[in-house]
Formats: sequence, structure tokens, C-alpha cells
Amino acid sequence: MSATVIKEFEQIKLEKEDGIAVLTLHRPDKMNAFTGKMMQEMIAAFDETDKDDDIKAVIVTGSGERAFCAGADLSEGAKTFDYDARADSGEAGRTNKEDIQRDGGGRVTLRIFESLKPVIGAINGAAVGIGVTMQLPMDIRIASDNARFGFVFNKRGINPEAASSWFLPRLVGISKALEWCYTGRVFPASEALAGGLVSEVVPQADLMSRARELAREIADNTAPVSNAVTRHMMWRMLGAEHPMDAHIVDSASIYERGQSADAKEGVMSFLEKRPAKYEGSVSKDMPTFFPWWKDPSFKWISKKGG
Amino acid sequence: MSATVIKEFEQIKLEKEDGIAVLTLHRPDKMNAFTGKMMQEMIAAFDETDKDDDIKAVIVTGSGERAFCAGADLSEGAKTFDYDARADSGEAGRTNKEDIQRDGGGRVTLRIFESLKPVIGAINGAAVGIGVTMQLPMDIRIASDNARFGFVFNKRGINPEAASSWFLPRLVGISKALEWCYTGRVFPASEALAGGLVSEVVPQADLMSRARELAREIADNTAPVSNAVTRHMMWRMLGAEHPMDAHIVDSASIYERGQSADAKEGVMSFLEKRPAKYEGSVSKDMPTFFPWWKDPSFKWISKKGG
Amino acid sequence: MSATVIKEFEQIKLEKEDGIAVLTLHRPDKMNAFTGKMMQEMIAAFDETDKDDDIKAVIVTGSGERAFCAGADLSEGAKTFDYDARADSGEAGRTNKEDIQRDGGGRVTLRIFESLKPVIGAINGAAVGIGVTMQLPMDIRIASDNARFGFVFNKRGINPEAASSWFLPRLVGISKALEWCYTGRVFPASEALAGGLVSEVVPQADLMSRARELAREIADNTAPVSNAVTRHMMWRMLGAEHPMDAHIVDSASIYERGQSADAKEGVMSFLEKRPAKYEGSVSKDMPTFFPWWKDPSFKWISKKGG
Repeated sequence: MSATVIKEFEQIKLEKEDGIAVLTLHRPDKMNAFTGKMMQEMIAAFDETDKDDDIKAVIVTGSGERAFCAGADLSEGAKTFDYDARADSGEAGRTNKEDIQRDGGGRVTLRIFESLKPVIGAINGAAVGIGVTMQLPMDIRIASDNARFGFVFNKRGINPEAASSWFLPRLVGISKALEWCYTGRVFPASEALAGGLVSEVVPQADLMSRARELAREIADNTAPVSNAVTRHMMWRMLGAEHPMDAHIVDSASIYERGQSADAKEGVMSFLEKRPAKYEGSVSKDMPTFFPWWKDPSFKWISKKGG
Repeated sequence: MSATVIKEFEQIKLEKEDGIAVLTLHRPDKMNAFTGKMMQEMIAAFDETDKDDDIKAVIVTGSGERAFCAGADLSEGAKTFDYDARADSGEAGRTNKEDIQRDGGGRVTLRIFESLKPVIGAINGAAVGIGVTMQLPMDIRIASDNARFGFVFNKRGINPEAASSWFLPRLVGISKALEWCYTGRVFPASEALAGGLVSEVVPQADLMSRARELAREIADNTAPVSNAVTRHMMWRMLGAEHPMDAHIVDSASIYERGQSADAKEGVMSFLEKRPAKYEGSVSKDMPTFFPWWKDPSFKWISKKGG
Repeated sequence: MSATVIKEFEQIKLEKEDGIAVLTLHRPDKMNAFTGKMMQEMIAAFDETDKDDDIKAVIVTGSGERAFCAGADLSEGAKTFDYDARADSGEAGRTNKEDIQRDGGGRVTLRIFESLKPVIGAINGAAVGIGVTMQLPMDIRIASDNARFGFVFNKRGINPEAASSWFLPRLVGISKALEWCYTGRVFPASEALAGGLVSEVVPQADLMSRARELAREIADNTAPVSNAVTRHMMWRMLGAEHPMDAHIVDSASIYERGQSADAKEGVMSFLEKRPAKYEGSVSKDMPTFFPWWKDPSFKWISKKGG
């Protein structure tokens, strides 16, 4: 089997092969720097991977060996982050009020947060600014030995974005999160591993094969509907006050999933010592209580315009 | 001193010796697999350890050298997790609506969460499914070198339960939690240690002596009422929004406990360089503000029956 | 440049040099033991560092090589923690109802939590009781190799305080937090490092130079207003339910900060490959939405007097 294109985009590529989708940030001459266009395409790509039942896991990586994503494209110079000044320029994704008000990085990370499929970041080079904060809602991050990371926002006079103040301290602890943001330091894969930002570092040449191996371990062993439910149980319960909140969801879930064909197949394949074949699909077989949460709405809190 | 039986059970053993209770999952011919009966007995056992002032700490382990708990008993085959189908069979713990609706693993973990005594898991072998999720509300987990762990739920077409979506990401981080659940991988003690699921790995032959040593360090040094209050301060504040919530409890606690005989003994024993002897008991001397929280109630969110 | 005194105190010292403030707990003949007076002075010191735009980072350490802070001064013996009994003695900080009711350690940690400047703990020796819990709201902790730590509260018949039940499990995980409190064990810097309580251990002789180096890395590279906003984004989002909460703040922040002179300087200095010079000041240039939160009020929950 060889990779097939899921949908054509301009600044990213989206392909699938044998149940695994690969989303590649693809502006190789620009170190895959982030733009409004890339934001829109990434959001659209996760819409595709969610609705395609063939896809059991999604890998996100960058084109080339130099960068995963070098951060915001700074080609607009001093007005790079001045969205009022840029509104007239018609730059993709900044032409209406929502685009001006809402941080584009956050729109991407909130979309990844909503994903129904497991997401693995395969960080193949420099990952700076939004290039690193976009990784935080991915479930697992592995890096090549030439990867570098930098939460450089405060070094540019702005602030960490993409909802990273919610994600980052939950991934690496508040002390490491603040140290990286306060200093704006660009650090190697080894420091990312020691700090818990990535779970593995492998040679550059082995990065994609290791990412695919992990995706395969998921695709070959576990039920897609179970993984979609589990993804949201775990992420959503990070914000829950009491374990009862989880018990309420678990109880409904074990009750419904326990009656499913997947559960019968899961037990019988185990007892018969054979691989399981799960027929339940994310598009048609999600439990009745899913989603059990109600997402909060965006609101504007600046007292300036926008 | 030798161990005395606290109460007789069928599928567990509950003994105490020199201030330390040991709860042993005891279905040695079934790898200590979990049943509705075991659920009821575990809940009852924690009622005993809470009310017995002799007991300063509780160790939970499994019978034999092979398994801590091999997970749900799968002897019902394809209908193992279909609680409607099993309701008529009269299997222990599944004969009324609550038993059908509420996840049994969660009833155990919520009960352990409520414990007034420190709880140490001594994981002596395979711990799979509910065999691992039941450990998560224990305060400290140590493992023997032959222990193995598996969050195998999604491999059986169901989902992580026992409120593990609340506990597990708080113990090991969301990335490791999801990796273990998405793959359903059964992994060795060394991976549990690296991932932060257990705090120590010791040779099988030393497991219980190390667990007892840790329990002794607690029983011999600190005040039981202080430990009961501290247990709930720490666990409950995991879900609190602001450190003021802790300051409110601390202030009441330092005020009341500061006037206690335990506090006077604690300071004077230190100044006199002698072991302290704490007379305050969990059954009679808990502070007036304890419990300061109100637990949420269970509710049913599935749109299916139950 | 040599250090200048910011303000004179009795039990602490507060100096600044080249943009970095050093707060030194200073009761060298008492192992820097904590008193009501020290509480008041620490709170006042953070008021100074917040309002002084010269100061880009704050280091907290202890006088001498023996202790950072040996905990509460136990010279009142059995009535040390009996604030009713001590109310009449007129001991500093315990002369009114608030001083009796509210835990003094918590008043310090809540004040450090509010800091607008990055805070680095340089732990130079024994840090016991409030001597360790006061460190928890600091952003980064590094220790000398002779440092020792002890959450000894339960060994004195009282409880962890200073809002440590909120902070500690978020820093080191619930299992390590409870193990340290249940045992009251005094442990070396190596155990603090392994447990994640400190991020580095250095030889005693190098402690302050390493702390200053870290403070310099902050002061020389990142914008003070960005750091003040980031500090509160990260700490406050620890208690937030959903990443949307962060996205709301990020969006306002990127919008306002993106228009700032700091942002233009940040981008242009990068493109021009020169050091940045940030003019934005914490006293005058904070974003319009800061603070975006409302702190909860203290309340009394003990059913005893106070």
C-alpha cells in the first residue's frame, strides 16, 4: 500500500496509508513558518481525519530536515503581531473581526484538542513559537535528535499563545513551563526529553518510522471508538474537580460500550488468542452520551478595540 | 506480635499487625481477578480500616507471586461487560439497578479516595484492567520487579474505568496516560517506574518488607489525625481552582490542630529529642471543619436504559 | 555596579543589583526561623519588588550556609501553634483576629503567588516546615548540595500549611507530596531533585552565582510586561477547566501586546540580529485586561472560635 492524498492543500500535505494519516507542514523554503492560511488548512485537515473512518491515528510533522515549524512568519516585520495594522493587507485569515480578535494559534490547538483520533507529533527540526505551542494538544510527542524548541514569545515582546498557558504546565509542570517562557531559550531535544515535553528522542533518520510504529501499535490493537472516547475522557477530566465526574462518564461508557460488538469481539479475541477486528466506527457508533460536555464560548476581554 | 484478622471475607483477606493493615486480594487460583463480590468486600474493608484507630496505614497487595489482580473475571465470555445481559444471572453485585448502572471499579476507587488512612499499593505481579486502575487512588505504589501493568480496556473494546481518566493523567501526565490506553500495551515494572506510575521497584522477595518499612515510617513518626486531614487536603485540592481554597482549610486546620494535645506533644518531643506519642484518634479527634467539602452525587448520563 | 538596599527590614534583607533583587531571610543566629514579623516583612518586600520597574527578577535565599529557613520559631514551646494562647503575648503578627485566624505561611505564599516579577528560590541549607512550603509559589527552585528539606508538619501534630496542599501536588505529584508529608522525613537535595521539587542542585559555593545567571537569562532576554502577564497566565490556568479559558486571555494579550512597542522591538531586534531593549514597564504598561481574574476571599470554616 502506498500513501494516498486525502485532500489537496497549499501549505500543508495530508495523506493516509494503511490507517495512518500524516499531516505535513509544508512551506519548505520558509522553514514551514505559520500563516493564517496554514491555520485554516490545519483546522480543515482535522475535520478530514475525524470524519474518515479509515484513519486510526494522525501523525503531524514538518517538511524537510531543518524545521518542524519556525513559528510565525515574520516577513511583515514590526507589524507582524499588530493585527489591526495588518487587517487591511488582506493576509489570509486576518480579514474579518474574528480573525483579528482570536489568536490563530489557539484556533489550531483548540481544534486539535477536539480531535477524535489519537495525534502524534513527530518533531523533525526547529520548533519555535507557534511551532512548539501547536504541539501541546497532541497526545504524544517524539523528536528527532536535531529538533530544537523555543517558547520565544516573551523575547519578541508578546506572550505565549495557542492556549499554551493551559497546556504547557499540565505537560511539563509550572516551573519548567515558566523557565522556558521567561528565558525564551531555544533548547535541544535532550532538554525537551528531560523536561517531559517529548517522550522519546530518536535519530532524524528514524523519526517517521518510529512515529509510524507507535501509530501502528494503536491502529492494530485498540478499538477506534474506544480511543475517541478515551481521548476526551482523559483530556476533559484534566479540568474536572472530583473523580465522581469521571465515574459518571465511566459508568455510562462501560454500560454502553460493554454491550457493543467491539466489547464482545475484544473479550472473545482475547479468550481465543487471536487479533481483534473492531467494526465500531467513529462516524456511526459513538455512545449516546458523547459529547457529555459543553464547550465554553470565546469572549473578548480586552478593553481595547478589536 | 503476629497478624490478626480484622474481619473475615471470601475473596480478600484483611489483617493487621503492629498498626499496619494488609488487604490482600485473594483468589489465588484466578490470578485474583476482580468480581462484584470483591468490589463489595474491598469497600467493606476500607470501612473497617477507617474506623479502627489501631490502624495507621493500609497496604494493598495480591495473593501469590503471579498476579496482583488480573482484571475483570472474563469467565462470562462475550457478555462479560454486558450488565443488562448479566443482570439475570444474579452474579454478586449486579442484581439491582445501581449495580448495573455504576461501574464497579469506580465504586472501589471512590471508596479508596475517601480513606482516612494512608494507602500503599504493593504490586506483586500482573496488574491489568481494574487490577491497575484500582491502584490509582492509593497514595503510594511500589512494585516488585516481576510486576506488569496494562490499561487494556481499549483492547477489549471498552474504555478505561474506575475514574482512571481523573486519576491517571494527574499521576503520570496526559501523554503517558493516553499512550498506555491507546496501545493497551502490557508493560514491565521498569516502564511503570520511568513513567511515574510507581515510585519504587524492588525484588519480589523484598516487596512486602519494603511496603511495611514505608508504612512504619508513617506509623512511627506522624500523627494519625494529621495524616487523615492531610490526605484529604492534598487529594481534594487537586481539583481546586485557587490556592486560597487551600489557605482557607489550612487556616482552620492550623488553628484547631495547633491547640491540640498532638501539637503540644509534637513540639515538646522535638525540643526534648524523644519520639512523639500522639493520642489524637481519627474516630474521636477530627477537626470540627472536617469534612469541609461536599461530594457530588452520581448521575446517569447514558441515553440508553440502565 | 554594587548592590543597593531597596528598603530596610529587621528580619530580612532586600537589595537590588543590575536589575535583580535578592530577598535574604536574615536571622542567622536562629537558622532564619520564621516569625510573624518575618511574614510581614516578606509581604512588604514583594510590594517593593512589584512596584520597582528596575527589578526584572527576584531571588529568595537565606543568610549563612546552614539554613534557608528552619521553620517556625519553636521558642514558645508547647504553645507555638496555639494562637489563642499566644494572642496575649503580643508577638508580632498575632495581635488581631485576622492574625490569629489566618495561617501566616499562607499569607506569604499567596503574596508570592501575586508577584509580578519572576521569583527564583536559591535554597542554601535546611528548609523545614514553612521554610519549604514558602518556596512552593516561587517559579523556579535551585538548591545547594547541602540543602535539606522536610515537610515535618504531621510530625509536630499539625498539618501542611501555606496553601501547600494546592501547590505541592501540582509541583511534584500527589504521591511524592503525600509520602513526604506522611513521613515527615527530612531529605537531601538529591531527593528533592529526583522528586521534582528543585530543578537543579549545585555546590554551595556556586548557588548564588547560578541563581543570578538564571535571573540574568530572564532579565537580558525577555520583556518585563510579557513576563508579568505570562506568570499569571501560567499559574492561573492551573486552576482553569478548559483551554478556552487560556485562549480568551491569549487572544486579548496577543492583540494588545502585538501592538506594543515591545512587540515591534522584539521582532525588529530579531530580524536585525541585535539584543532587544524593552521599554514597556510593569508599573505603566500592563494590558487593559490585566488582571482578568477575581481572587476569592478568605473565610473562616472552623466551628471553633478564632
